[in-house]
Amino acid sequence: ADVLAVDDFDESMVREVFETAAAMKRMVAAKGGSDVLRGRVLANVFYEPSTRTMCSFDAAMKRLGGQVVSVSESTSSAKKGETLEDTVRCLECYCDAMVLRHPQVGTAARAAAAARKPILNAGDGVGEHPTQALLDLFTVATAWAETGAAPPDVLACLAGKQLTLLGDLKHGRTTHSLALLCSRLAAPPSLVLVSPPELRMPQAVCDKLRARGVAVEETDALRQVLPQTDVLYVTRVQRERFATEEAYRAVAGSYVVDKALMEAAPPRCVVLHPLPRVDEISTDFDADPRARYFEQMENGMYVRMALLALVL
Amino acid sequence: ADVLAVDDFDESMVREVFETAAAMKRMVAAKGGSDVLRGRVLANVFYEPSTRTMCSFDAAMKRLGGQVVSVSESTSSAKKGETLEDTVRCLECYCDAMVLRHPQVGTAARAAAAARKPILNAGDGVGEHPTQALLDLFTVATAWAETGAAPPDVLACLAGKQLTLLGDLKHGRTTHSLALLCSRLAAPPSLVLVSPPELRMPQAVCDKLRARGVAVEETDALRQVLPQTDVLYVTRVQRERFATEEAYRAVAGSYVVDKALMEAAPPRCVVLHPLPRVDEISTDFDADPRARYFEQMENGMYVRMALLALVL
Amino acid sequence: ADVLAVDDFDESMVREVFETAAAMKRMVAAKGGSDVLRGRVLANVFYEPSTRTMCSFDAAMKRLGGQVVSVSESTSSAKKGETLEDTVRCLECYCDAMVLRHPQVGTAARAAAAARKPILNAGDGVGEHPTQALLDLFTVATAWAETGAAPPDVLACLAGKQLTLLGDLKHGRTTHSLALLCSRLAAPPSLVLVSPPELRMPQAVCDKLRARGVAVEETDALRQVLPQTDVLYVTRVQRERFATEEAYRAVAGSYVVDKALMEAAPPRCVVLHPLPRVDEISTDFDADPRARYFEQMENGMYVRMALLALVL
Repeated sequence: ADVLAVDDFDESMVREVFETAAAMKRMVAAKGGSDVLRGRVLANVFYEPSTRTMCSFDAAMKRLGGQVVSVSESTSSAKKGETLEDTVRCLECYCDAMVLRHPQVGTAARAAAAARKPILNAGDGVGEHPTQALLDLFTVATAWAETGAAPPDVLACLAGKQLTLLGDLKHGRTTHSLALLCSRLAAPPSLVLVSPPELRMPQAVCDKLRARGVAVEETDALRQVLPQTDVLYVTRVQRERFATEEAYRAVAGSYVVDKALMEAAPPRCVVLHPLPRVDEISTDFDADPRARYFEQMENGMYVRMALLALVL
Repeated sequence: ADVLAVDDFDESMVREVFETAAAMKRMVAAKGGSDVLRGRVLANVFYEPSTRTMCSFDAAMKRLGGQVVSVSESTSSAKKGETLEDTVRCLECYCDAMVLRHPQVGTAARAAAAARKPILNAGDGVGEHPTQALLDLFTVATAWAETGAAPPDVLACLAGKQLTLLGDLKHGRTTHSLALLCSRLAAPPSLVLVSPPELRMPQAVCDKLRARGVAVEETDALRQVLPQTDVLYVTRVQRERFATEEAYRAVAGSYVVDKALMEAAPPRCVVLHPLPRVDEISTDFDADPRARYFEQMENGMYVRMALLALVL
Repeated sequence: ADVLAVDDFDESMVREVFETAAAMKRMVAAKGGSDVLRGRVLANVFYEPSTRTMCSFDAAMKRLGGQVVSVSESTSSAKKGETLEDTVRCLECYCDAMVLRHPQVGTAARAAAAARKPILNAGDGVGEHPTQALLDLFTVATAWAETGAAPPDVLACLAGKQLTLLGDLKHGRTTHSLALLCSRLAAPPSLVLVSPPELRMPQAVCDKLRARGVAVEETDALRQVLPQTDVLYVTRVQRERFATEEAYRAVAGSYVVDKALMEAAPPRCVVLHPLPRVDEISTDFDADPRARYFEQMENGMYVRMALLALVL
């Protein structure tokens, strides 16, 4: 039972993860942690730094009573010329499951092919980041559940809604994974993709979404689509993607989410961001009840607790 | 309940920390550890390296049955342009309290303003290092308690005593915090500050001490004050503070604590050093019963166990 | 009870370690971990990177219910000019035992002289690596035990056998330690040392082995000795040991263990490698039942669990 890609999940699996994550959230609130993974060891292997993902897997395993062995690029034997497959086969000797973050697409699948133990993909280059997509969707579901039906049912609540993805949709792994996860649902939300022309969602992803019956609209006009937006997913536009500082500022400046802009959005809109943010969401919006990005961080731990409990 | 600065503590709080720390010391001696913080997670966040402080908080949490998520500068998102406040609000999603070491003054207070969870200041630039001051004073109290009254009562035992601070008092954060902690006591010891003229204790600290009724004397003549010294607190004079190698050597050489020099000190004098030391305390003095700096290291763990148990 | 060098072990101690390691292997298979070292803290101190050794000690301690404080060169105070002895005396304040890896020969012994707590040598430069030698020999013993007598008795099973060490025997710390461990047995195997002339086993090691009654033969002809080889221990020949790329390739290419070559070896030959490997064992041999190097990795954890349980 690996967790490699969003396409590994169907609706009933998503539902199982979310129900388990919600139970984890209640358990942590009640008593901090449990002992269900006592005696188990997770290898947390990060070939590129990622505080959030690394720490949330780390804390997730520990709150379940398990232990973690951490491996970073600087301590790994990759630089001695060892293949990824050999590294994986060695590390799995010590652990019961392995979380892997790697800058190259397809690495998690290669690791899973070599390993006997479960592999959890924590991001492979511009490829996938399935646990992020799950926690993003879980945050939407729980945000809306607070105001209505319990237990949270992401299928029911997303039907007929509009999810607007904003920013660098070309390189943003998290937006690809979230869009693809939506396409796994029987009644997916419609997707509105807002980006500068040079940073559009890859055509291959759009084609896949449409082939699965998801309504996809592309635009660069955020203000026009905001009034119909039920979920606004903001990502960072990185300076290094642009030829000149002016070109960067023109684009970045046009996508700043702040208090004033958000007056045009519905009162129950859910605003997400994978973080870290720089200027693309103004701190003046943080106190707004629609700002859910820190709650999203916290949900990351509960969703990862659920995944660990399910694969171990 | 944050631990940000020495001024957060009054005499009764110091007493509570010391009594808890003494209980921790007995518990570790008897059975190694306990389960009181089971299910709890501490984030140990170090923006600059510090083996001792980091390891002692780490071991302290683990000996109480809790778990630790470690974050260092190299793995943090600060370099992606994230603000300290955002980093803190993210990390607290995974943990129940946060230890923070940072090169800039005031960082711990900023973190505490942003956070919902307790923040423990593990040193903020040339600012404060309150847990170090507490462990320093605890070492004095327990060292004297061994030879006399139980339970250790730092208030009683320090009254009328002389505490001599030696070395670079200008940049030495630990000496500022220790002096200020003494000034929080009803009957503080008198302070003798021994340093080369260019490395004196900042005037603002001296003023604050005197305003609180602490007797403060400044001198550069160690030998003259040594016979009346009850506690000698030695710090490192760093090469990089001096314009020339000769200037450094002249000063550093005049403040070397060794067996011969210590013949002039009283037989129950307590000698402390925050460590690491280079040459300022000769290893020929290590076997002397007045040398308490390794015991002081060990006490660091007990005091931090006490603080963690009190804030969590 | 330190673990510093192979010569600290006699036959009965080796037997005790192996019996304990076999029990650990069964325990992990049955329930993942235990609580025997609950409340205990291990300091895992690595002055040079070593994923395998570091992770296996880390996982070993955690599977026994203990906790680990990790210290790497980048976080240590050595660069502030602190002596090894001071570092050890500080770190032992927080822990109950210390694993030490250091690039300089003799460091583990120096640390043990300074420390009150047990020191486990995890490799000191070109010196010793005793825990590696123990896990190597344990792998041979258990590999053969599978096919015959139980409980595994390394003494009985190695008598009259031939152990062939291959590769860079001059710099290879693991081969020195393994050969010396064999010499501690009442009925050691005979040793065949296969290396290019410039990378021979140091004369001092050979002299010691022969003085203890071990039959030692040196050669550079692998194919000739392979049919009589019961254990083939392969090590890496490192590029940087040679003046030219051609000289390196000529040697490295002549010692590649692959499927074709191994047709000349006996069907119950055990092939080991301390890993990481580069090209010296072809992946086409990995599926052969004689390939035991990944099992050897796993045994590293069980042997280290045994050593920790015995010294703590």
